[in-house]
Amino acid sequence: MSSLIHKVVVVGGVAGGASAATRLRRICEKVSIVLFEKGKNPSFANCGMPYFLGGQIASRDSLIVTGVDTLKKRYNIDVRVETEVIKIDRANKQVICKAKESEYSENYDKLVLSTGAEPIIPPWEGINNPLIHILRSLEDMDKIKQHIVPGKKGVIIGGGFIGCEVAEAITHAGVNVSIIELLDQIMPPMDKEMVQPLMEDYKASGVNLLLKEKCVKFGEGENGTVNVHLESGKVVNADFVLLSVGVKPENKLAVESGLKVGPRGGIVINENCQTSDPDIYACGDNTEIEDFVLKNRTQIPLAGIANRQGRIAVNHMFGKTPDSFRGAQGTSIMGGFNYTIAGTGASEKSLQRVGYTTYEKVYTPVNDHAGYYPGAKRMILKLIFDTSKENYGKILGAQIVGEHNGIANRINAIAMAIQGGMTVFDLEESELAYSPQYGSAKDPVNMIGFIASGLLRGEQRMVHIPEVLANRDQYALVDVRTPREFQSGHFEGAIHIPIEQLREKISELPKDKTIVTYCKIGMRGYMAQRILNENGLENVKNLAGGFETFEKLFK
Amino acid sequence: MSSLIHKVVVVGGVAGGASAATRLRRICEKVSIVLFEKGKNPSFANCGMPYFLGGQIASRDSLIVTGVDTLKKRYNIDVRVETEVIKIDRANKQVICKAKESEYSENYDKLVLSTGAEPIIPPWEGINNPLIHILRSLEDMDKIKQHIVPGKKGVIIGGGFIGCEVAEAITHAGVNVSIIELLDQIMPPMDKEMVQPLMEDYKASGVNLLLKEKCVKFGEGENGTVNVHLESGKVVNADFVLLSVGVKPENKLAVESGLKVGPRGGIVINENCQTSDPDIYACGDNTEIEDFVLKNRTQIPLAGIANRQGRIAVNHMFGKTPDSFRGAQGTSIMGGFNYTIAGTGASEKSLQRVGYTTYEKVYTPVNDHAGYYPGAKRMILKLIFDTSKENYGKILGAQIVGEHNGIANRINAIAMAIQGGMTVFDLEESELAYSPQYGSAKDPVNMIGFIASGLLRGEQRMVHIPEVLANRDQYALVDVRTPREFQSGHFEGAIHIPIEQLREKISELPKDKTIVTYCKIGMRGYMAQRILNENGLENVKNLAGGFETFEKLFK
Repeated sequence: MSSLIHKVVVVGGVAGGASAATRLRRICEKVSIVLFEKGKNPSFANCGMPYFLGGQIASRDSLIVTGVDTLKKRYNIDVRVETEVIKIDRANKQVICKAKESEYSENYDKLVLSTGAEPIIPPWEGINNPLIHILRSLEDMDKIKQHIVPGKKGVIIGGGFIGCEVAEAITHAGVNVSIIELLDQIMPPMDKEMVQPLMEDYKASGVNLLLKEKCVKFGEGENGTVNVHLESGKVVNADFVLLSVGVKPENKLAVESGLKVGPRGGIVINENCQTSDPDIYACGDNTEIEDFVLKNRTQIPLAGIANRQGRIAVNHMFGKTPDSFRGAQGTSIMGGFNYTIAGTGASEKSLQRVGYTTYEKVYTPVNDHAGYYPGAKRMILKLIFDTSKENYGKILGAQIVGEHNGIANRINAIAMAIQGGMTVFDLEESELAYSPQYGSAKDPVNMIGFIASGLLRGEQRMVHIPEVLANRDQYALVDVRTPREFQSGHFEGAIHIPIEQLREKISELPKDKTIVTYCKIGMRGYMAQRILNENGLENVKNLAGGFETFEKLFK
Repeated sequence: MSSLIHKVVVVGGVAGGASAATRLRRICEKVSIVLFEKGKNPSFANCGMPYFLGGQIASRDSLIVTGVDTLKKRYNIDVRVETEVIKIDRANKQVICKAKESEYSENYDKLVLSTGAEPIIPPWEGINNPLIHILRSLEDMDKIKQHIVPGKKGVIIGGGFIGCEVAEAITHAGVNVSIIELLDQIMPPMDKEMVQPLMEDYKASGVNLLLKEKCVKFGEGENGTVNVHLESGKVVNADFVLLSVGVKPENKLAVESGLKVGPRGGIVINENCQTSDPDIYACGDNTEIEDFVLKNRTQIPLAGIANRQGRIAVNHMFGKTPDSFRGAQGTSIMGGFNYTIAGTGASEKSLQRVGYTTYEKVYTPVNDHAGYYPGAKRMILKLIFDTSKENYGKILGAQIVGEHNGIANRINAIAMAIQGGMTVFDLEESELAYSPQYGSAKDPVNMIGFIASGLLRGEQRMVHIPEVLANRDQYALVDVRTPREFQSGHFEGAIHIPIEQLREKISELPKDKTIVTYCKIGMRGYMAQRILNENGLENVKNLAGGFETFEKLFK
């Protein structure tokens, strides 16, 4: 096939387009490659922009991944910046482009669409106020950067990845930040309870979190400021606004040229990243992709996925195998002030959305490394796995929230396990790196595997915290921690029996309710549940994740 | 089966025995559990001892994982410390034990041997000098601790994990440390080139590394010190000596009772951790286990493996499935002064030892996170993978050395991939967590996957540094870096053509030798190799890992 490919046109740089173009040149020296880029920079690190705004990254130049010159000279790519492709003429295999005043056509053998996504800009009154910004290009960033002055008030509309990253970064630069979020949580891809510590972290660090608030219009404020009017009647005054309410696939070219797009606007591609026209490939935020776990169609705007797709498109053109797009797990991580949150695979939310019911979940609070070595930090893992006969124990997803350290480590290990189609029983057996600075002889990944496997084997009988909180009168809570732990905080009405005394006090336990044993993290609670089960009390459950999980995630 | 088990006797605590005993109680409340421990502490964190010596861990008590009291009261385990099992009477299913002056027998339905390993003590003259110590128990640690005084001279014989950890820890406490090692490298399980940066690190941090030196005897030094005499004639004076030349399975009980042991002394067990007597299980450093990758028999004294075996033994007794021992990958990590080293799966060394020839290896120096975000640290990954048709691209092992950050993260991801039987092509597609603080859009794990896959696909044509160094006259080295990089250091005699000028200077290249392109890390070198290949020069190879890999690993 490759012998027929003389010229490949790539529309759009970052991140898939640049990956495709450079990979293409590495594969083939003779093919002519034209890269069109609407903006000025075909390859820049958009994920770094929040941290340039906050001043953590000092040099703007460091955000340029591959400059135009490098693309031209090293890769011999015909880069045309500030040039917009305005039409695809599929019949004649050419694109029509517009640069400044001139329009011209460029033919192709293969076309790669990496047009990305465009920020959603709601039709709110006053949205054209020059104090309202989006953050998609370096030029957008430059405009916002002018506002980053200590004491200024910034309003961020939308508490997703970008909103949260910018909020943290510019708070450190002295800006007074408010986040306005429609939902009852920030970081919407994550399950709400997992975001709880992060929300506390943001509030404690000075961010004004306005949840379940809907922006309706913008008005002029005093001294050249802007007022953000909310449906609740609240008005938030700001020196500048960052609009980050999400993105939608930039699919105009695809739609106009009759390529198939999905219901949410993403260009439909196959596992080779081919669109409905086999000579046209697409990669990045403009595509609709398969969810690796749920097998449904989704859109996940992440740089890593775009890069993979760019490579895969080119590999397919040139018959480089084995390589095909396997779907996206949505592995992601976001660093807040004192907490980091990460996820991979399905969330509980996403399972519920598609009516997936054969799953269970477990929680465990753990240290990132051996508690006896200084500097150990806490994290809470949530693991979601399949309970059906067909996929018994298969890992569906995981989320971790905690004090920065060791979170990327464990989410990556679990991401790899999901990619390998592995089960919770595999997590029990995993052999991960241990020395006191870096882990534990039983790594957090092993621990969550033990708990999940125990649940499937029927050893762990578990009840989740929201269920107990919602139906308190049906449960008799038994706190099996030490007196000191009990005194420092416990569930109201809990019976206190330190686990060491449990065997001799079994007769004191109520018989008319489900007994819920609990401890700090669920280990002693589990032991207590087992003791009671083995002594003939069947109606006993261990509180999933223990009191620490309650305090951090569900309080 | 479990209904026949009324009493389980566990011989030895840390780490497998304690795991077995506690897991046993969680499974079954009625079984009687007797745990014999020769020493005073059935469950302590031996991996923490180096750091108590160095003062990084301040509290000795924090090393007690589970105290005798907890084992007795919480787990209802009949713990008998300072009691040695001196004989197994298999015919009568009982053990003979000795506590202080008394001897008695204890019957069992199932027996678990967790006797661990004992330090090898060579028969060197003067070895009984009271200044010479081993580090196996807390009592050993206490004795050494008395010597940890600034300005004292400590000699560590053996540069394995424990030797290296203690060296680093007590150097920080002001001790002047020498390591005497028989081999030409410290950290013997790792490949030598990967240890190079660590050895530089140790030397630069003040440790006196004496490699290829054999201790032959000890003599008395001045002022109550000890002299360590080496075969080379050198004499090293010390205030104390730590002997850490390895361990051997503590198999006396097993051997005397006729249980099968392997050639290196490890007790032979099956995948259920059963010895040749199905009523006797064994777990931990006293066992011979299967190497997960090589499928041969090996002995790997690591806590995580011991814990898993303890669980598996008990799970098998009680029919808890699925659970069986899958073999050991030897995943490990060790933190030095400014460098950390980690490995998983097979090393090149271990492959060569068994005559495994169908493998290749690749190297890549990378940042732990995006270079544009402050604080990025360097690491070098080595990936070893299968090149045979049957196991095309299967990952065999990996090692990473670098400046601490992000190493545990990547070795764990690759360890999980090995467990899942995954290939280098899977690493290309892995979806790992990326934000600028934690990774890169193309994670180090993806990068090493790209390189390995490129090699298998024939795109990457690679030559390894030692080959070029050994046969310099057969190769024409072409440095494709910038003038500034070239000036800061390059291979003698290298032709300098910045990659941007390569296409126009092809005619200047020599035709009579294999051309070796190189850059800093291997990316531009690869591009250069491709440019030359595609322009008709077939005899071109890219220097694996580039100049940075040369400087750090092979110089």
